Amino acid sequence: MVRTSYREQLVALAAKIAEICGLATVAMETATRALLRADLVLAERVIREHDQIVDACMAAEEAAFVLLVRHQPVAGDLRTVVTSIQNVFDIERMGVLAKHVARITVRRHPEVAVPSEVAHDFAEMGRVAVQLGNATQQALLMRDVETATSIDDEDDAMDALHAHLFVVVMGREWQHGVPAAIDVTMLGRFYERFADHAVEICRRVNFQVLGETTGSDEART
Amino acid sequence: MVRTSYREQLVALAAKIAEICGLATVAMETATRALLRADLVLAERVIREHDQIVDACMAAEEAAFVLLVRHQPVAGDLRTVVTSIQNVFDIERMGVLAKHVARITVRRHPEVAVPSEVAHDFAEMGRVAVQLGNATQQALLMRDVETATSIDDEDDAMDALHAHLFVVVMGREWQHGVPAAIDVTMLGRFYERFADHAVEICRRVNFQVLGETTGSDEART
Repeated sequence: MVRTSYREQLVALAAKIAEICGLATVAMETATRALLRADLVLAERVIREHDQIVDACMAAEEAAFVLLVRHQPVAGDLRTVVTSIQNVFDIERMGVLAKHVARITVRRHPEVAVPSEVAHDFAEMGRVAVQLGNATQQALLMRDVETATSIDDEDDAMDALHAHLFVVVMGREWQHGVPAAIDVTMLGRFYERFADHAVEICRRVNFQVLGETTGSDEART
Repeated sequence: MVRTSYREQLVALAAKIAEICGLATVAMETATRALLRADLVLAERVIREHDQIVDACMAAEEAAFVLLVRHQPVAGDLRTVVTSIQNVFDIERMGVLAKHVARITVRRHPEVAVPSEVAHDFAEMGRVAVQLGNATQQALLMRDVETATSIDDEDDAMDALHAHLFVVVMGREWQHGVPAAIDVTMLGRFYERFADHAVEICRRVNFQVLGETTGSDEART
């Protein structure tokens, strides 16, 4: 193994992880479209294709371990590889949450799981989730602090949408009963958690880049 | 740095992580008691003491990184330290979930957030969560595959309790309206996720111990 090969493997690992983040984001985008139209075919596709995300995550985690064991990277590189394992963990959860959205769509089909007065909220949550997922993919690929920092606004938008959902569902005007309220509650939580995982990854990218810029391990605490 | 000191640090790190798992478990135990009695003082204690869990998690993660950077462990030790960082991540989430339970208790006080017909389910979910947390703490400390394997039954019990909750809340006899249904849904999810994180940690302990026994990295896939 020459040093170049190791460097190439590091770059390939980062690219792979960014790619899986893209898959999870596409899954959430598709799941949202399926949810809003009660589209059984789309929802089932998300569920079926979820295994690809899981397999890709396992492969990336294993590749990171192999890199650690074979090349024993030091300092910054070591931190990069270890945090990449943590990032894979978050991305895997993002994929699971997209599948959860698809599952509720399937369970309620042919009805639309989200009543019309919250459809717009979910369209927005889906849009923000996809933006966050795309920003995270960019941050992973470009190690771009700018992108990683700007996602705070999107995360705030997601929190506001999530809070608004509760207001609607708990309000006196809610006519759709308990089962629909439970679906909406769970769905809201899935989008919010999706955003949280994306933010967590961006936070790590920030710490890493900051740590390298200042040349100090303390930068991440 | 002599080799013994490094070995001691590895053992100390494992003990520390097991201890934090214990803190998260106690938090869930206390949060459950608070939930069932609408005990504001207990619930606020869980919320107040949550920062200790977060701080301890950050310190453990940092200690693991320092160990990696300073001692560059190889093979089995390397895997142990890296997976310990993943375990800390799950334990931190377990602590957050206990805090979420406490928060709902505070929000509904002086009412009890869980109507009487599901109080027994939550008492059971709390009991199973604590058993899982304790088993995980043991697995982390003793690296005991036996304990780690037996938790599958507890996890099944948790899933059954969670499924039963939905049946009750979505049933025609539910008299408590949408807000209580939403609380019960969220609470059920918190207990189920707490169990999932514990199971995830035990799964990792299993892989590690198996990998060492067979002397093969392939054992974990």
